[in-house]
Amino acid sequence: MHRGSNQLQLADFNQAVVLDAIRSTPGVSRAGVQRASGLSSQTISNITRRLIDDRLIRESSPGAGARGRPSIPLTVNPDGAFSVGVHIDPARLTIVLLDLSGKVRRKQQLRTPQATNPTEVTTLLADQAASLVRRAGVDRDRVLGLGLAAPGPLDVQAGVVLDPPQLPNWRNVQLRSDLHEATNLPVLLDKDVTAAATAELRSSRGTATDFVFLYLGSGVGAAVVADNQVLRGTTNNIGEIGDIIVDPNAEPLDGFSRRGGLAAACVPEALVIQAARLGLLPLPDLNDYLAIDDSCTELCTLASSGHGGAARILARAARGVAVGLGVLVNLLDVPRVIVGGPLWNRLSETFLPVLPRLVTQELVATHDGLVVQGSAVGEHVAAQGAAELIMDHFLAPRHSALMVG
Amino acid sequence: MHRGSNQLQLADFNQAVVLDAIRSTPGVSRAGVQRASGLSSQTISNITRRLIDDRLIRESSPGAGARGRPSIPLTVNPDGAFSVGVHIDPARLTIVLLDLSGKVRRKQQLRTPQATNPTEVTTLLADQAASLVRRAGVDRDRVLGLGLAAPGPLDVQAGVVLDPPQLPNWRNVQLRSDLHEATNLPVLLDKDVTAAATAELRSSRGTATDFVFLYLGSGVGAAVVADNQVLRGTTNNIGEIGDIIVDPNAEPLDGFSRRGGLAAACVPEALVIQAARLGLLPLPDLNDYLAIDDSCTELCTLASSGHGGAARILARAARGVAVGLGVLVNLLDVPRVIVGGPLWNRLSETFLPVLPRLVTQELVATHDGLVVQGSAVGEHVAAQGAAELIMDHFLAPRHSALMVG
Repeated sequence: MHRGSNQLQLADFNQAVVLDAIRSTPGVSRAGVQRASGLSSQTISNITRRLIDDRLIRESSPGAGARGRPSIPLTVNPDGAFSVGVHIDPARLTIVLLDLSGKVRRKQQLRTPQATNPTEVTTLLADQAASLVRRAGVDRDRVLGLGLAAPGPLDVQAGVVLDPPQLPNWRNVQLRSDLHEATNLPVLLDKDVTAAATAELRSSRGTATDFVFLYLGSGVGAAVVADNQVLRGTTNNIGEIGDIIVDPNAEPLDGFSRRGGLAAACVPEALVIQAARLGLLPLPDLNDYLAIDDSCTELCTLASSGHGGAARILARAARGVAVGLGVLVNLLDVPRVIVGGPLWNRLSETFLPVLPRLVTQELVATHDGLVVQGSAVGEHVAAQGAAELIMDHFLAPRHSALMVG
Repeated sequence: MHRGSNQLQLADFNQAVVLDAIRSTPGVSRAGVQRASGLSSQTISNITRRLIDDRLIRESSPGAGARGRPSIPLTVNPDGAFSVGVHIDPARLTIVLLDLSGKVRRKQQLRTPQATNPTEVTTLLADQAASLVRRAGVDRDRVLGLGLAAPGPLDVQAGVVLDPPQLPNWRNVQLRSDLHEATNLPVLLDKDVTAAATAELRSSRGTATDFVFLYLGSGVGAAVVADNQVLRGTTNNIGEIGDIIVDPNAEPLDGFSRRGGLAAACVPEALVIQAARLGLLPLPDLNDYLAIDDSCTELCTLASSGHGGAARILARAARGVAVGLGVLVNLLDVPRVIVGGPLWNRLSETFLPVLPRLVTQELVATHDGLVVQGSAVGEHVAAQGAAELIMDHFLAPRHSALMVG
């Protein structure tokens, strides 16, 4: 597979510029690429010829009704390149196969094996990735690499998962090199929230250029998109918001260092502890993220079916999330908040009807019509974003993250 | 004066590109400008000739020891253009005169007239600005405009001060057009924190490219600099952080909607209320920001002279500020925090020795060597930034804010 990736490597910066123009504007003509890139028409002619020969782009027939010499629309060849995206949440593993047109061709969700060595997870992921590629029937030589989204803090430079509070067995795991060895694919590691915001930005196609992405999974985090750029932070660990105090009157919760913090207000572990305290559910094993996740699902089902106590727990969580979002919107002055992640499908029914009003109550400046919306991508948003980071790494004019392999 | 500004308007985008290259790299040669701009040598030769004729730039003698044909260093002419910067804090007005080389030629601080009509402040500012220009002996036709930094929320688009909590008489004040009428200068209005971060970024000359600027004045605010760009927010109202909960056990304070919020932890009004409660100082008239400011100075002097009660109030304020900064650093993953504003000189003695440790305690990810430093510019940082925004507006290739006149 590694050989294939080398074959696909773009020859030069100009080639990346041209491919990028065609990726971002499907159907663009050579003249359009020239306007967008500033390259000479001869250069563009040579490069598009090479990209067609490499099967990365293709020509369509010109639209009817064009006057004069018809310009030939250029689009990427969806089968020209693929990337695998993996999202590791302590409770759920999500794997997607993305094609060059940005479409998710296959996706899969698994329960994250608990209480195991990280190596077992690496092996599982490598097997699943290979099987996904095989079942999709795509040319393995066309798979550029594997992007990995994981909870922070990460050492993105070294490809290491440092000591994420949500992955207690994962201390200083050389995730990037381990997974590279297991798959023989180039591997890129990035933070879950950054990957998720990347996918959300891409899928919004220009309608959302400045927003905060709130990630709700086994943990809580945020990403910031300003002027069409996903901010990364200096150490690529942007978005640690779990300690923001949102509920000063909250009781202390075991396992949460910050009383009344955002994490203690809304992550599944906190919600099931609260439910157990009220006798709604038995307390699950708090070292088992699967058990927590299942309990949380049960709590959300209870609330959904009209159980008052369960509904009150989620309503309080929504208020906490709103206070946290108020901090982010007041600080960053964004017009839009997008909420997503593995927990979101279970909370959106309770949260979406109340969040816009609750967040607006928190705002200092007038933000007429602050938009609060659920992810347009869905639960696999971080996995898709990780796959998109691979595409960008190999095909875009600027490299977005570090890579081995 | 207006005529002069028109005379100074740059003829075209390329001229702005060339001048920008010379402003940012004093002593650059024509060849260096060519490399930086991508313009042809003929274009650069024509433009530099025009800029020299307009007295915006000048040639120095080539350095000794240059081999071959010596290249002539180009620098801006400091007297080529000026801008006035004004910072309105509820307690202090700061006015500076900036020259084209970025040097503050004159500066002045006044007590903000209280309980007056905003028009009186406008008239006072116009008189002071005219007197500053006159006393500096500079050519009035060379003054490009007046930049105004004010507390938010602002409608930067309309040039209106909306309803800043710190300026109770200033509701929907047409500050930009009023001041334009009073001075006949082009006027640009921007937020205090944005202006301050602009000056701080410029003065750091590349050493600080990503940081949070914490503004401490009659109010508290923040600005965010990411990858050498000052973020503005969608409505230019970035940095409203006064409501971030930093001290959940704090008692409620009159006039502060958010119990335990950052504003209630550190702004002068909050500090003097706390001091009065402990009987350290008489409670000043809380509608009079000058009286509050004077009381706060007294409190800081007490603390500085070893008064235990006063020192404890400031120590608690430092802890609150550290929790707030922890929120910002955890969220934004910046390597540096810069603190400044009109209150900073009085607090730095207490705050600087403890802030780095207190903030680091709040951090989730490892931020080895987080830098916490005082403003390198000084108390006039927001005024200087406002003047720099004027320079950029007229002379930089991209316009940074909206303007009348």
